[in-house]
Amino acid sequence: MFSTFNFSGEGVGVELNADMRAITNPSFLIHHHYYHPSLASAVLRSLRHRLPVFSPSLIRVRAQSTSTSTSHAELDNVRTGRSGSLASPPTHLDVTQKIDVNPPKGTRDFPPEEMRLRNWLFQNFREVSQLFGFEEVDFPVLETEALFIRKAGEEIRDQLYCFEDRGNRRVALRPELTPSLARLVIQKGKSVSLPLKWFAIGQCWRYERMTRGRRREHYQWNMDIIGVPHVTAEAELISSVITFFKRIGITSSDVGFKVSSRKVLQEVLRRYSIPESLFGRVCVIIDKLEKIPIDDIKKELMSVELSEDAVEELLQILSVKSLTKLEEKLGSSVEALADLKQLFSLAEKYGYSDWIQFDASIVRGLAYYTGIVFEGFDREGKLRAICGGGRYDRLLSTFGGDDIPACGFGFAAKGKGTYARTQPQVQNIVCSLDQDLQGAASSVAARLREKGQSVDLVLENKPLKWVFKRAARVNAQRLIIVGSTEWQKGMVSVKILSSGEQYEIKFSELE
Amino acid sequence: MFSTFNFSGEGVGVELNADMRAITNPSFLIHHHYYHPSLASAVLRSLRHRLPVFSPSLIRVRAQSTSTSTSHAELDNVRTGRSGSLASPPTHLDVTQKIDVNPPKGTRDFPPEEMRLRNWLFQNFREVSQLFGFEEVDFPVLETEALFIRKAGEEIRDQLYCFEDRGNRRVALRPELTPSLARLVIQKGKSVSLPLKWFAIGQCWRYERMTRGRRREHYQWNMDIIGVPHVTAEAELISSVITFFKRIGITSSDVGFKVSSRKVLQEVLRRYSIPESLFGRVCVIIDKLEKIPIDDIKKELMSVELSEDAVEELLQILSVKSLTKLEEKLGSSVEALADLKQLFSLAEKYGYSDWIQFDASIVRGLAYYTGIVFEGFDREGKLRAICGGGRYDRLLSTFGGDDIPACGFGFAAKGKGTYARTQPQVQNIVCSLDQDLQGAASSVAARLREKGQSVDLVLENKPLKWVFKRAARVNAQRLIIVGSTEWQKGMVSVKILSSGEQYEIKFSELE
Repeated sequence: MFSTFNFSGEGVGVELNADMRAITNPSFLIHHHYYHPSLASAVLRSLRHRLPVFSPSLIRVRAQSTSTSTSHAELDNVRTGRSGSLASPPTHLDVTQKIDVNPPKGTRDFPPEEMRLRNWLFQNFREVSQLFGFEEVDFPVLETEALFIRKAGEEIRDQLYCFEDRGNRRVALRPELTPSLARLVIQKGKSVSLPLKWFAIGQCWRYERMTRGRRREHYQWNMDIIGVPHVTAEAELISSVITFFKRIGITSSDVGFKVSSRKVLQEVLRRYSIPESLFGRVCVIIDKLEKIPIDDIKKELMSVELSEDAVEELLQILSVKSLTKLEEKLGSSVEALADLKQLFSLAEKYGYSDWIQFDASIVRGLAYYTGIVFEGFDREGKLRAICGGGRYDRLLSTFGGDDIPACGFGFAAKGKGTYARTQPQVQNIVCSLDQDLQGAASSVAARLREKGQSVDLVLENKPLKWVFKRAARVNAQRLIIVGSTEWQKGMVSVKILSSGEQYEIKFSELE
Repeated sequence: MFSTFNFSGEGVGVELNADMRAITNPSFLIHHHYYHPSLASAVLRSLRHRLPVFSPSLIRVRAQSTSTSTSHAELDNVRTGRSGSLASPPTHLDVTQKIDVNPPKGTRDFPPEEMRLRNWLFQNFREVSQLFGFEEVDFPVLETEALFIRKAGEEIRDQLYCFEDRGNRRVALRPELTPSLARLVIQKGKSVSLPLKWFAIGQCWRYERMTRGRRREHYQWNMDIIGVPHVTAEAELISSVITFFKRIGITSSDVGFKVSSRKVLQEVLRRYSIPESLFGRVCVIIDKLEKIPIDDIKKELMSVELSEDAVEELLQILSVKSLTKLEEKLGSSVEALADLKQLFSLAEKYGYSDWIQFDASIVRGLAYYTGIVFEGFDREGKLRAICGGGRYDRLLSTFGGDDIPACGFGFAAKGKGTYARTQPQVQNIVCSLDQDLQGAASSVAARLREKGQSVDLVLENKPLKWVFKRAARVNAQRLIIVGSTEWQKGMVSVKILSSGEQYEIKFSELE
């Protein structure tokens, strides 16, 4: 019963494998947080101690399944109990077609068991963002194509899911959230007080050839700080991703962060008098370092006016893995060094030094970063990037706005594969023993819901055997039976399903 | 400070106006439910008593604003405190463009204050769905166009947001959720046990000429019951929408439900020997009754092979507003009557009789309904439909699947207009008095977050005056100041912002 959950950084497909019994049982409880607040938060607290049994392989969560599980055969059995009788004569729509029952290539459905996982994940994104004092925002999924067009050869540009709408406008399904954020920040102008700390959880699209079985849609969690020019902002962002990982049971022996600054690269380019206008493009090429052969990288770099010397120097610098060595190479006065030193010093104060390491080869694949860049990776080395982000102080001016210092990260959660069956849950299942008492059962359900109790009301006259199976499937805590003799006395039967305890109670006292 | 929130039924744009001070203050608290579970649920409970001061006009919510409000001028003031200094030399991307800072026509952004409202609304959708024992599902927003093509002249078909993708496939942004649901149900086949009780909250699109300022995207809440052939299912669905209305403070004197059955129409068509294949189209025409002149309706009906007699008889039946009268006209043996009588009887048991009324003119604008249909409307008569649904027992076979009895409703929540400023909230604001203590402030923030406390960390060295203004803006409960003298003793200063109480506490004892 293993399941794959695919977390992916920008443009890079990576996977975390997890035993969903571990992840999704709590998921259910957090999902039901809505009407069980104290219970769920207790579970969440205990989770921090119980869950973290991640042993990466890719990264697997192992834990005991504590759920009562209904077997597949049993469920099929239950199925035959459904009524097939249709009360009405057939009413034809005027077209009958045989459709493909699968969602379109590269997209997916979320049936209940996978929706519980998604909700659990998003809930964690939200809780962490709010712990850090961030406010949630969202943008249209359909934006004008121009918002995403940059000329730096980014993979994200090549894979833009763009088209012409019925009014002949060029539009695109957003491939990322940052340009929309920039647009909104410019639009808000002076009406907002800085710094802004915003987060968003949104669906994004890429149009890829489907050869690698990658999806064309995924969900992304973004956090951005607008208006802080200091590395304190990057340190805060990295802290929040790490807080998220800890919360879902991932430790610093599973995941790490590689950190660098684009100013390192900028310094090298400056020394070789490479025009700044080429900077974005050079970064995008370098981001492919572990994806395509080194000779191709060299060729591409040389094709954008870099001399062979410059390329060699660049590649040497990119192989540096310590700040001391970087200082030797570039001298102590470069800005990049001061930023990076401060970041590592702050990491110590936050208490996440064991999660981060300097690596000059990190540049990120998006053209707009200007300073610190970072990437999450798995320690086993099988995944290239889990999430990533950095500083983009010059983004707003590329859209014609005034620049405001800014940084952010994206964390792409791609659900993929089959999950272990997880359990729904409901507090009560209510049924009548007699067709004529269906209305009475409705009254009972209405009363319980009024009291804040969730109820699965049996809507057909079914044998008790069926009802017990249904109760097991939905994990009901109590079964309330409305029988004729009791109802005449204003009573109903209650059965506590965990203990088997059974009693009668006045309808008017039922809570 | 009034705001418009636009709830819309399928194909029908309608509006509820609400004073957002009433709606959005609770909204914030529910939003922060995530880490304040007990507080938020207490608020939610008290809300049920406090909020309902809706006096429709369209429908307005009035209530006292309990929020502390920061004036606009003050906020602008704070703005000037931001650092404009950019640490790095400019790094140009290779394109600079002047983009439109507004979202594309017909779409919208959700800045924090509107996102809080949306989250509050969705939270209510979820809580109600779960009270009724429904499980959440979702589907791709991009489906193959074929899934939505029906030939009954529906408005929804004409407004399909469809296009050709880069692989020359015809696709569409979903205009509704029901066809995707049907696809998933067919796909799941016998692997699921019936009945299914599923809900979804999803974004939907329509491509309309923008003359009426209507949006091209909106969010829809759907609940569906798959596998129950009885009216008990429709009664349960109507109960859940009404539970939602009550929860947000709307009463039966604000909103009502008109209920009918398509079997009424079917009976009339049968008597005039009209072929069943025309049924869907006739329903779609009749749904326009209050939207276009009656003569146009007659012309359209006659153009689909109805005689003048049949049209007159049809229009007469459609004007019937009581079940007694319907029985007089059609006789007591018609199936429609038995269904409707049972529904009204169940409504009594649920306790929502005062919300519903029979109205033969209700048919709904989608071709696929086969039995009971219902529409929410506002009692002032300004809105045509707030939400709607019904039974669609024959939908699955139109896609080539085996039919399963099913019914559902859609509730479209269209956000629109400007909302009153609502308040964010955070438990702590943490700042250092000294640049060198920024790391110490990070430690303090990390400790508090570890304890589950939300923290807005001040990331720059700012004067205390600025910090107090920020604290007011984010509604912080405590201000934690890290000063040099105290920190050397391992202490920090705490100020409770509501009372002004101030004390020092050991860092290691801070919770």
